[in-house]
Amino acid sequence: MGNCVQGAKDYFCRPKNTNIRVSLPMMCFVWQISMIILFGVFIRYDEESDTHWIEHRKENNITSDIENDFYFRYPSFQDVHVMIFVGFGFLMTFLKKYSFGAVGFNFLIAAFGIQWALLMQGWFHSLDHTDGKIKIGVESLINADFCVAGCLIAYGAVLGKVSPVQLLVMTLFGVTLFAVEEFIILSLIHAKDAGGSMVIHTFGAYYGLAISWVLYRPNLDQSKRLQGSVYHSDLFAMIGTLFLWMFWPSFNSAITDHGDGQHRAAINTYLALASTVLTTVAISSMFQKTGKLDMVHIQNSTLAGGVAVGTAAEFLLTPYGALIVGFCCGILSTLGYLYISPFLEKRLKIQDTCGVHNLHAMPGVIGGIVGAITAAAASESTYGHEGLINTFDFEGPFKDRTPNIQGGHQAAGICVAIVFGIGGGILVGLILRLPIWGDPEDDNCFDDEVYWEVPEDEESIPPILEYNNHMSNKQQEMSESNFSVEQS
Amino acid sequence: MGNCVQGAKDYFCRPKNTNIRVSLPMMCFVWQISMIILFGVFIRYDEESDTHWIEHRKENNITSDIENDFYFRYPSFQDVHVMIFVGFGFLMTFLKKYSFGAVGFNFLIAAFGIQWALLMQGWFHSLDHTDGKIKIGVESLINADFCVAGCLIAYGAVLGKVSPVQLLVMTLFGVTLFAVEEFIILSLIHAKDAGGSMVIHTFGAYYGLAISWVLYRPNLDQSKRLQGSVYHSDLFAMIGTLFLWMFWPSFNSAITDHGDGQHRAAINTYLALASTVLTTVAISSMFQKTGKLDMVHIQNSTLAGGVAVGTAAEFLLTPYGALIVGFCCGILSTLGYLYISPFLEKRLKIQDTCGVHNLHAMPGVIGGIVGAITAAAASESTYGHEGLINTFDFEGPFKDRTPNIQGGHQAAGICVAIVFGIGGGILVGLILRLPIWGDPEDDNCFDDEVYWEVPEDEESIPPILEYNNHMSNKQQEMSESNFSVEQS
Amino acid sequence: MGNCVQGAKDYFCRPKNTNIRVSLPMMCFVWQISMIILFGVFIRYDEESDTHWIEHRKENNITSDIENDFYFRYPSFQDVHVMIFVGFGFLMTFLKKYSFGAVGFNFLIAAFGIQWALLMQGWFHSLDHTDGKIKIGVESLINADFCVAGCLIAYGAVLGKVSPVQLLVMTLFGVTLFAVEEFIILSLIHAKDAGGSMVIHTFGAYYGLAISWVLYRPNLDQSKRLQGSVYHSDLFAMIGTLFLWMFWPSFNSAITDHGDGQHRAAINTYLALASTVLTTVAISSMFQKTGKLDMVHIQNSTLAGGVAVGTAAEFLLTPYGALIVGFCCGILSTLGYLYISPFLEKRLKIQDTCGVHNLHAMPGVIGGIVGAITAAAASESTYGHEGLINTFDFEGPFKDRTPNIQGGHQAAGICVAIVFGIGGGILVGLILRLPIWGDPEDDNCFDDEVYWEVPEDEESIPPILEYNNHMSNKQQEMSESNFSVEQS
Repeated sequence: MGNCVQGAKDYFCRPKNTNIRVSLPMMCFVWQISMIILFGVFIRYDEESDTHWIEHRKENNITSDIENDFYFRYPSFQDVHVMIFVGFGFLMTFLKKYSFGAVGFNFLIAAFGIQWALLMQGWFHSLDHTDGKIKIGVESLINADFCVAGCLIAYGAVLGKVSPVQLLVMTLFGVTLFAVEEFIILSLIHAKDAGGSMVIHTFGAYYGLAISWVLYRPNLDQSKRLQGSVYHSDLFAMIGTLFLWMFWPSFNSAITDHGDGQHRAAINTYLALASTVLTTVAISSMFQKTGKLDMVHIQNSTLAGGVAVGTAAEFLLTPYGALIVGFCCGILSTLGYLYISPFLEKRLKIQDTCGVHNLHAMPGVIGGIVGAITAAAASESTYGHEGLINTFDFEGPFKDRTPNIQGGHQAAGICVAIVFGIGGGILVGLILRLPIWGDPEDDNCFDDEVYWEVPEDEESIPPILEYNNHMSNKQQEMSESNFSVEQS
Repeated sequence: MGNCVQGAKDYFCRPKNTNIRVSLPMMCFVWQISMIILFGVFIRYDEESDTHWIEHRKENNITSDIENDFYFRYPSFQDVHVMIFVGFGFLMTFLKKYSFGAVGFNFLIAAFGIQWALLMQGWFHSLDHTDGKIKIGVESLINADFCVAGCLIAYGAVLGKVSPVQLLVMTLFGVTLFAVEEFIILSLIHAKDAGGSMVIHTFGAYYGLAISWVLYRPNLDQSKRLQGSVYHSDLFAMIGTLFLWMFWPSFNSAITDHGDGQHRAAINTYLALASTVLTTVAISSMFQKTGKLDMVHIQNSTLAGGVAVGTAAEFLLTPYGALIVGFCCGILSTLGYLYISPFLEKRLKIQDTCGVHNLHAMPGVIGGIVGAITAAAASESTYGHEGLINTFDFEGPFKDRTPNIQGGHQAAGICVAIVFGIGGGILVGLILRLPIWGDPEDDNCFDDEVYWEVPEDEESIPPILEYNNHMSNKQQEMSESNFSVEQS
Repeated sequence: MGNCVQGAKDYFCRPKNTNIRVSLPMMCFVWQISMIILFGVFIRYDEESDTHWIEHRKENNITSDIENDFYFRYPSFQDVHVMIFVGFGFLMTFLKKYSFGAVGFNFLIAAFGIQWALLMQGWFHSLDHTDGKIKIGVESLINADFCVAGCLIAYGAVLGKVSPVQLLVMTLFGVTLFAVEEFIILSLIHAKDAGGSMVIHTFGAYYGLAISWVLYRPNLDQSKRLQGSVYHSDLFAMIGTLFLWMFWPSFNSAITDHGDGQHRAAINTYLALASTVLTTVAISSMFQKTGKLDMVHIQNSTLAGGVAVGTAAEFLLTPYGALIVGFCCGILSTLGYLYISPFLEKRLKIQDTCGVHNLHAMPGVIGGIVGAITAAAASESTYGHEGLINTFDFEGPFKDRTPNIQGGHQAAGICVAIVFGIGGGILVGLILRLPIWGDPEDDNCFDDEVYWEVPEDEESIPPILEYNNHMSNKQQEMSESNFSVEQS
């Protein structure tokens, strides 16, 4: 037994090898080939993207091509797409020497995840039982992007501390868990969650935090020199922040009901986000000497309102309701960066690189609660008879549901998301502790050098020689031949 | 009396205190809470974003959800949103050490302004007199973004010289003035101004210039070391330029008539902007030795065509007319940067950081004039009977108006915009001179250090020590422990 | 004869003069004025952007303004616009000291080219024979952007080695050749090419490569110090990469059939691109020691799937077919960067700065082949009777065409594109060798200093003095007054 423990300890504690020359390509190839096979077996165009659309139109008396779902959702889809790849990608570039990893691995796992998401979500939601095929259209693409968003949030918690191979494993399991959790919340419980406060943000954040907890690195401060930002990396991160902020109304309205549903969700999100900016700035300024603002808060907490309004965005939250939600979340999220993150790290041993607890976990839970309350408070007098049915889909097996009951089911949804996030995260975290994934040493975290060919900056030419350039041309030639390294 | 003057002088000239730890949070909180209350009292969803839309559709024989105004305007709205937050924000990042302030304060005042704009514009334009509520939809969001654009233009003139608290005050009054001016121009005078050449650009630019004039800093050259750009800050600014340039067709067509109105406005703007690029490059190259291009011109003057075609974009300006407008504005705006800006600074004591006079004021006025001429030249033979009525809204109380008279009213609109801009700017400038707003000293302008926690750049490690890194590991360790500073 | 040769040799070999103070402005002005005149003579609004739309609607029983082509295509247009100006522009900013030239000249030639493209494409495709006018609408704007994309691809091959005047000449001829080639392929041969694999990418890439071949610089390694990237320039390039990647579905679907055509094209492109990312990462990692990733591959090869799916995107390629195309192109393109580009440079004397051969030429040809195969394999049983006619436009003079024959014609299209590209490129290359265009010396390539006013970076203060700043204030003042240079 002692031997066994010792053996396990040795196995887990041997010096780390970050060589991923075999594992990364193998993973990519095996995965992509599997995808091709599974897509070949399962995935087909739906009736709106198939060449039979023209016949479908006639049969269903659709007067114009413009009523193809493509025109209802494609602009929102593209906005969501920008949020996933530029928004999340650049938001994480704030570290001084991990920007390649931030934007590059974000790109990799998103492209990897959307394919698996199309399959997983397809099996649960859009399987055509007549022929056993999954039929995809623009809404499927949006849902795949949503699903991947959950995994990218989780990436934020472990940013800089894991290898790309670990990220792929994390995404593989993350998408799977997401699809199951989503099916339970949206289909079985029949909770509504247009912008995914519960399904995407709560789940994704707790999934990432749980993984980070399992992968706790007690000596992470050996990489402390790389944990900050530099001036321009903070500006790159602002690109991410702003594209997330601007397109969040599209995120929350992308898959809501045609017509007033999309319209209202966009308005509510727009207002909640505006309100969040003000309180984030207020708290950030209030807690620094001389009232200086902290870029970390501006980059992150300004987005909390969008998260928190996700579930209720399509309900009659009312414009001032949206403002109140944004107001509270800006305060809470900024306080989170000031007090809760340090607490989590010191006491709970959760190292949360991007602060996803403040940006996604807390606002996500709040969003779920706001959704539950708003749903429970709905009534025919405010929504109208048809409006109420329409908004909450009180149809088919759910036609007898009342707003009150719906509120309870919404609340149940939050719990499912948390349980799946934490449970799944611990499980996946344990898998990721196997010493075969090529993750970096504690003193090598947050460093692009480990997984990227990084160009030598000109500044790395010893400056003393650069100074001499001004003095003598001869020395310049010498210094160049000796020290400057060009990218091939 | 002498005492009084001396007292006032002492009051205004005491050493400046840039501590905004009380004023900024207080302002944000008071403001946001007021907004919540006012929204609660006044703002409701309009019939296209309310759950009663489904009943509204049936009553009005609307065949499909796609005819909800959301689908006509939402893609343009998102483009405008990008212009406001990324476009204006990044355009101003060109200064070497004021990029945080540029993009961050732009974010703050835009989020702050849109809420107030929804109320102010709502009271003037979309108050439902049956219940005293303002009904908002996607068009209201666009208009709020437009309104804020005026204030962001004004920010360009005072960039780097004011505190965030001053910016909030400036925005508060700016939005108020804007709403009044807009009401006079669009509703009372019944001038048309789709892209806001007059209402947005002329007003905003003169508002900012007048404030800058009142806040004139004779010793601003003490901050001269920070007034330039660095290589990468110019690239960040190009992100702003390009997003403004690309989405300007959406800006000018966002609130024009459904159908041909939006279509034509987009085409005209596209053409005017293309033409502007060519003449901007020509003039920029012509006035530098060896024909080198100046990034300042490329970043700014290339946009002048979009400003100048704003009013006439929805008229039958004709494609070549749009090219001519762009042609002239590219020349004028670039010459403005070369000759007029220095003149304004030296002779008129107007310090215009971003050159808004060249990019917004002059092209805005030209745009107003072009609009007046195009309107006056309209006729039933070219527009068609219904087309003429449709384009100029010659309906209701204005059904007897002729194109000629409309041209005169358009011209009157320009004057209103200028008067409101200059008058309002002087007034607000005087308020901003009170020494309570935390603005920086003359030798401290254009410096993010004043209002932001700025990360220490690695370069601040004395380079001589960095050189030694190549020589000895021991010294490296020493240098790190002594000099490198990490962001917490 | 000998004299003549000697004379010619002297003429072509005289020391280069990069002064473009006369040629660049002259070219811009002459060009822009010609455009205004030609637009005045030829270009008018089409019936959907003219004020007579309201009458047109009634005559054609169009029930709603939403059926104006504007609403079908404008969101895609804006995405394409972003790809042209931000996508291509920033993708090329990767060089450490040529980012101004990359994004600035890209801006110039795109704005220059779209005007000429509207005319050239108009004469070939949308000339109204009743009045001899070209009628433009939103689809014309998209086509103009497409046309310019070909020239921007060509710019990628010669990036850093030519003057802006040469670029304008190259664009002038490039657009002309493009319009002719497009007319032959799409109208005469009646090949389909929605995303322009052949018409845009194959043509553009070979055009650029042929020019680069004619302009071969044997001593280009004198500029080797500037051929690499720096950390932040690689991040700027990622902005370009991501906007191209995200909006490629809009590119390939922008001008396809309303309804299912646009819908399907977007789905196929989304899938192909996702698949490409995985294989690009795999190959990039596999060929570097310790499996490190190379930013050059991530920035470029990840896009190859979008190119290769261009022709077949609107066909029933099937989702797994799209994945397979992306799979192969990711591998091929990355291998191209590793092996083919060095081979082209050493053996074929083709210096391809951005590797357009790997990103556009090879994937473009593959895209053409995939299109031919997919077309040939089409059948009524899969497409449906109407679907087949609709998808391939088997109408009018082409109503008897079978899928098989269509496949052959598609293949012919590839050849036309290659022939026009190489032939046109050689011709234009010879013109560009005239020593009147202001191109840089071999040791001066890839350097913004030649054509731009470049701000002095703070780092250019001799670092030894900067170090001394920490020691003595006196020396600081001295160093500033001596060395720091501010931008005026």
